[in-house]
Amino acid sequence: MIGVFDSGIGGLTVVRELRRFLPGKALVYFGDTARTPYGNKSAETVRRFAVEDAAYVLGQGATTLVVACNTMSAVAVDAIRQRFPSVPLFEVIAPAVDAVAARRAKRIGVIGTRATIGSGVYGQRIRERLPKAKVIERACPLLVPLVEEGMFDAAETKRVIRRYLEPLKHQTVDTLVLGCTHYPFLKDAISHKMGKSCAVIDSASVTAKAVAAQAGKLADGPLTLHFSDLSPHTEELARAWVPEADAINHVPVERVERGG
Amino acid sequence: MIGVFDSGIGGLTVVRELRRFLPGKALVYFGDTARTPYGNKSAETVRRFAVEDAAYVLGQGATTLVVACNTMSAVAVDAIRQRFPSVPLFEVIAPAVDAVAARRAKRIGVIGTRATIGSGVYGQRIRERLPKAKVIERACPLLVPLVEEGMFDAAETKRVIRRYLEPLKHQTVDTLVLGCTHYPFLKDAISHKMGKSCAVIDSASVTAKAVAAQAGKLADGPLTLHFSDLSPHTEELARAWVPEADAINHVPVERVERGG
Repeated sequence: MIGVFDSGIGGLTVVRELRRFLPGKALVYFGDTARTPYGNKSAETVRRFAVEDAAYVLGQGATTLVVACNTMSAVAVDAIRQRFPSVPLFEVIAPAVDAVAARRAKRIGVIGTRATIGSGVYGQRIRERLPKAKVIERACPLLVPLVEEGMFDAAETKRVIRRYLEPLKHQTVDTLVLGCTHYPFLKDAISHKMGKSCAVIDSASVTAKAVAAQAGKLADGPLTLHFSDLSPHTEELARAWVPEADAINHVPVERVERGG
Repeated sequence: MIGVFDSGIGGLTVVRELRRFLPGKALVYFGDTARTPYGNKSAETVRRFAVEDAAYVLGQGATTLVVACNTMSAVAVDAIRQRFPSVPLFEVIAPAVDAVAARRAKRIGVIGTRATIGSGVYGQRIRERLPKAKVIERACPLLVPLVEEGMFDAAETKRVIRRYLEPLKHQTVDTLVLGCTHYPFLKDAISHKMGKSCAVIDSASVTAKAVAAQAGKLADGPLTLHFSDLSPHTEELARAWVPEADAINHVPVERVERGG
């Protein structure tokens, strides 16, 4: 069973893409909505929460882990691997870096939360693969709350996107990495702003493709979503974004803290 | 010693006002930045976190509690009182309702987080005091992230304020309650939008006045700020907003969960 986890609801974009590439496979999703967002928190706190989240989906029967969150992928993957060394683990950064490298991009923009961008992980890994590339990273902390309000096409959202992306456009980036699993909901507005000469790489989609290609045999089964806090707003968003979910459950955060 | 606590950094507006009305008094502040924001979480989760936060500031030597958060004031005050029945406790809703009642307001707008507005607590308590008043409540979930970005005067912020407040202005409210401790940072922009015929009641300020009037004898002493997650961004905001703080400390969230 695939176990996908995220700091909240953003990782549901990865679930949607996994269903597209791996239809009918058993999948459990955990969103840590009681402690969301992780993106403005310190690396130490994110690592502790990440290990607890992984333990929770493993406790639900997952055999393959997918970290559907750039912040955790940036700072907590080693901690998860150390704790669960025998479990296959996918994260969202490596597939995006692979896609950038395959394009032989020259001027690359990366957008994400403050924690992801502050880690510098995208710049570092892209330069390892493309030493001559120029990488411009930019934190866009308001995009997550705008997505969580469902304001995908609002004038305010376009204005915030313009504020964040104008400097990247000025630097004529040829490739832009959406380094946050919330951002695929804004892909149209972002692509429109960047123009046709800029390719937009969506980490949710490239990650799902990588899992489908490399995860081996997976069992068919239900798709269940678990949240550490299930407010009416969260439930409404989850139903709208993943209508094929077989169940939406609330798991008290103290159970997650105790390790599932 | 006064113990002030909030889900994050918004309650620092109450600290600022307390310093104005009670200069030099010993004060400990706890901001639960590891689990912020509370405003989109369920009442059950908010209650559990609130009791832990109160226990933490009591463990630091506080003798009077100030809940500097409308979300906790709306849903968790009874839970805190049940757990610590002998400790004097102030919250931010009663002083704001008193101020509305004193004005004999007729058409009252209340803005706050989704949790505060969803609780309906302001409408209920205002109608108890002013049975003929019309109360219009509106959740404004984007204002907290905009304040936390320090975008007090940005064009985007003005646009979001317009979106949220236009319906209240249309209903010609005579009094607007800022039912979230983050909002005083936006008071100028909000007052400007609402116009001169609308009084704006700032819950941080009226709460500090109530504490100063009713708390009795308090000892002089240092002002210390504690956060369950201390990212560079949080530290920078805390220093800018409360420059007179004697210390800014990080307390691991697991200590708060264990009860201080």
